[in-house]
Order: sequence, then C-alpha cells, then structure tokens
Amino acid sequence: MKPDVDDEAHMPEASNPFAERTSVEFVEEGVQLAPKFDAHGLIPVITTDFTSGEVLMHAYMNREALAQTLAIGEAVYWSRSRQQLWHKGATSGLVQKVRELRIDDDQDCVWLRVEVVGGASCHVGYRSCFYRRVQFREGKPATPSVLEFTEQEKAFDPKAVYGDAPNPTRL
Amino acid sequence: MKPDVDDEAHMPEASNPFAERTSVEFVEEGVQLAPKFDAHGLIPVITTDFTSGEVLMHAYMNREALAQTLAIGEAVYWSRSRQQLWHKGATSGLVQKVRELRIDDDQDCVWLRVEVVGGASCHVGYRSCFYRRVQFREGKPATPSVLEFTEQEKAFDPKAVYGDAPNPTRL
Repeated sequence: MKPDVDDEAHMPEASNPFAERTSVEFVEEGVQLAPKFDAHGLIPVITTDFTSGEVLMHAYMNREALAQTLAIGEAVYWSRSRQQLWHKGATSGLVQKVRELRIDDDQDCVWLRVEVVGGASCHVGYRSCFYRRVQFREGKPATPSVLEFTEQEKAFDPKAVYGDAPNPTRL
Repeated sequence: MKPDVDDEAHMPEASNPFAERTSVEFVEEGVQLAPKFDAHGLIPVITTDFTSGEVLMHAYMNREALAQTLAIGEAVYWSRSRQQLWHKGATSGLVQKVRELRIDDDQDCVWLRVEVVGGASCHVGYRSCFYRRVQFREGKPATPSVLEFTEQEKAFDPKAVYGDAPNPTRL
C-alpha cells in the first residue's frame, strides 16, 4: 500500500529525530516515525524474541531512550523504578540486539523484535518475564485463578548476576 | 520449579477473583493471579495471535475487564478513549478467543494469546496494529526514521465495518 500523505513536508529536524503528529492520516498511514509519548513522557514497549516470537518483557521508553535504541541498535529503556535511562544488559550482560522496530497504528506503542545475548531477559532469572499462564480449554480457564509455570528452570541465577541490587518489583 | 510460598493462605475470595499482593516472593514465584493495577486502575495487555505469534495490539484492562476475560474466554478491554468496557469484536465481529493468558514477573502486565475470528484486529483495517517497521541490519536501522509497511493490503474495509464511529486515534 502506498500512503498518499505528503511525507516530505513533515521530515524531522536533526535535533528531533521524530516527525510531528500533524494529522490522523499522517500518523496511521504515513511512513514517518511520529511516536506519541504519554503524560509522563513515556511510550510502552513490547519486546519479543526475534526467533521464537516469545514475548520477553514489557517496558517503557522516553524520547531519548527511543532515539538511543535507534542509534545503537540495542534496547535502551526508561527505568520507572530508578528514574533513569536503562541500557538493558549493562549490568547483566544480557543485551538485546534490535532486529526490527515496529510501531502501531496510532504510534503510541513500540514492538521491538530482538536477539538476546545469553538468551534471558527476566530479572527473576527466567528467559521471558511471562513464565506463568492460565490455559484455556474451549473458552474456559483450565485452572481458574491458578497459574502454571511455563519455564521449569531459571536461565541464570539472579543473585550471581545482580548481586545485592534492589529488586525492581513493587507491591 | 515448585514455588515454596504458602499459596493456600492467599486464596482469593469469591467477590474478588484476584489474590492480594502480600510479598514480592508471592507475586514473582507464586501460582496465584495477583495483578497490579496502576494509578488509573489499569493493567497493560499485549495481545498476540496464538498461531503466528504476531503481536496484534496493545491495550488496557481494568479489574472488571480482566475478570470478564477470564469468565467468558474472549478479550474484554477497557477503552480509554470511550471510558467503558470494550468487548473486542462486539462491533466488528472480530472477536478474540483466548487460548492462554500469561502474567509477567511482577504481575503488572498481561500477555493474551488469542485466536481472532476474521483474522484482523486493527481498527485501520490491518491484521495487526503493528503494520509498519524499521528493519535493522548489523545493528543499524536500514531506513532511519522511515517506516516500511509489512502488510500490503488491508484485511477489511474499516468504513464498511465501523461506519461513522469516531476514529479512536488521538493526536
């Protein structure tokens, strides 16, 4: 499909790598990256394993994190718990190499397809953060309100990798 | 892996289908669904196609939407633009049948694996909301700041399906 909006007119400036959101048609059908950051300056990010397709994690980027991710080809998030840029793998070595960055229709969510050095992305030690499930059979939860583990073994020992760093999980 | 927390003690009551978040260990390593809703009462949801693994959409649920999704086995979201429960497919017929519901480590994000009646999930007419990408080659964006379409044809005509309903995309 060939978008019929005038993209040349909205080319981003060098100081701002992203285009302005000038119309719904430009955002939905255009070929310029014009992300929407929320009231906190953040955009949610879904990160999947490029090969298996598994969802690894859900995180957030601010404008700078998204610009850095595009610049270095490795996932850089915004850590809400630490309130700082978070180059994933800087501590653990489990760097996420970006193979593809997708944006959704209204450009308020990023889908990052990555290869993970070391094969794991979860601070608890699992490959994916989503290591528990409720399965459905014929439209009904097989085990209502009870979660089943999808990974039996941790991919790494979080204590060995993160030491005494505070656990980011908040109640 | 067998969790060693005492799950029996935290069984949810009938009036509230979800467990209380009593400790980090219970949330991360337990087998009870104990979701965290944000300051607006919402939890982000990643929805993927059960067969292809493709990310279809990113949306939100409140407590009732999540409870209804578990009860009827079809995706029910909270529409932030319309401020109401949103049984996906009620208007378009493109119902999402839940095959698996996953929760992440700190239980503040849901991953829904669905089968889509009609095969499309995006209000613009595409199969996935994520129909545009930046590809990376050797760590560099192949087309910096320019998006490439991944779907060449729309799966349905949004005007025929939604009529004059307002476009949910906000600038």
